[in-house]
Amino acid sequence: MRREEYRNWRHLFKLDPDKLINDEHLDRICLSGTDAIMIGGSSGVTFENTVELLSRVRRYSLPCVMEISNMDSIVPGFDLYFIPVVLNSRQPDWIVGMHQQAVKTFGHRIPWEMIVPEGYCILNPDCEAARLTDSQTDLDQSDVSAYAKLGEQMFQMPVIYLEYSGSFGDMELVHEVAQHLNHARLFYGGGIVDVHTATEAAAAADTIIVGNIVYENLEAALQTVQVKTE
Amino acid sequence: MRREEYRNWRHLFKLDPDKLINDEHLDRICLSGTDAIMIGGSSGVTFENTVELLSRVRRYSLPCVMEISNMDSIVPGFDLYFIPVVLNSRQPDWIVGMHQQAVKTFGHRIPWEMIVPEGYCILNPDCEAARLTDSQTDLDQSDVSAYAKLGEQMFQMPVIYLEYSGSFGDMELVHEVAQHLNHARLFYGGGIVDVHTATEAAAAADTIIVGNIVYENLEAALQTVQVKTE
Repeated sequence: MRREEYRNWRHLFKLDPDKLINDEHLDRICLSGTDAIMIGGSSGVTFENTVELLSRVRRYSLPCVMEISNMDSIVPGFDLYFIPVVLNSRQPDWIVGMHQQAVKTFGHRIPWEMIVPEGYCILNPDCEAARLTDSQTDLDQSDVSAYAKLGEQMFQMPVIYLEYSGSFGDMELVHEVAQHLNHARLFYGGGIVDVHTATEAAAAADTIIVGNIVYENLEAALQTVQVKTE
Repeated sequence: MRREEYRNWRHLFKLDPDKLINDEHLDRICLSGTDAIMIGGSSGVTFENTVELLSRVRRYSLPCVMEISNMDSIVPGFDLYFIPVVLNSRQPDWIVGMHQQAVKTFGHRIPWEMIVPEGYCILNPDCEAARLTDSQTDLDQSDVSAYAKLGEQMFQMPVIYLEYSGSFGDMELVHEVAQHLNHARLFYGGGIVDVHTATEAAAAADTIIVGNIVYENLEAALQTVQVKTE
């Protein structure tokens, strides 16, 4: 795929290497019409389970990208690598620290043209990602818009990612943040469980990411792809 | 001035609004042949002393830029605004926090085309800037190179700034960091006290910044401008 193709994506399935999915379900996900598969998760992600999932998704023709959560699980062979920069973390490790360690470790071998930095704002205080990254989630609309604008303008981030993992977010806030962005792509994830929530989220953000529901209710998950034709 | 002009600068004088400089000395600094005046400091910088120093420098035709250290001292009328992002700070405030607050406060009024983000690495543990920003200064060459590369590639920073404020840095390290950069400009500051140190620093970095010596030994400071013709 061409690098910039991701800017046209409206719908992604995010698959967690640490969760089981059988061949039939994976087949239906990959043939669903979604724009791409993103592989990544907050915990239990290893080189082994990532490479295994990648090889299964690679039987299909759609793009497959990795969202990197730790250095040990980086697998070659993805189309792109998305790198979270957690703008509202209280720990520099999640903003620049682990990234610096990765650059120190991999150096010249990093294919920068395949890297897509994501300016994350994690907004559900009860999710694992928020706990892991010690994120400051008590933010109002103007706080989040300021993080988004900062990510876009100061750090030239091509993607701003509003993450409500485990709960459906404040769509008014998401819509407002979108108004503040000029060229960054706005990703939204969290609590998309059916075509209704998918439609709402897709009306506010540029790209929606559908995750957990894949493992909980496959039929409902598959229906979210309808946002692509709306 | 055109925005991109700063990429040709070899030598800057950094003047601290909190320090006194008489008209004769300022005259000699501004007519020295330096590429530009940068106004900024770690402490005691206010709107009042900044606007006063700006108006005095504005009698001369050379570019005058501000390096912002706090939100209250931002004065309109500079040619460019340099914004430090302290990559090796242990406090998110110095990486994204204060910046987010500034975007929240100023919003649409921020002239992004006049903003130049600087990826700082503060490397002298005994300087005020290191204490203020709680910087992790115990870094080797590969650590600093990784921060620099991260700033350039992941955050698209146009300037990487190695700051040894108060002491002359490790020129081998500075030279090595320069080798890792493709398009970012490498700024060096700290301990430049005469033409000899200036020449050494200018051989390693793209742009050198001469600060304290202006207030301690004007003649020696003026001689550092010779690096421009070497």
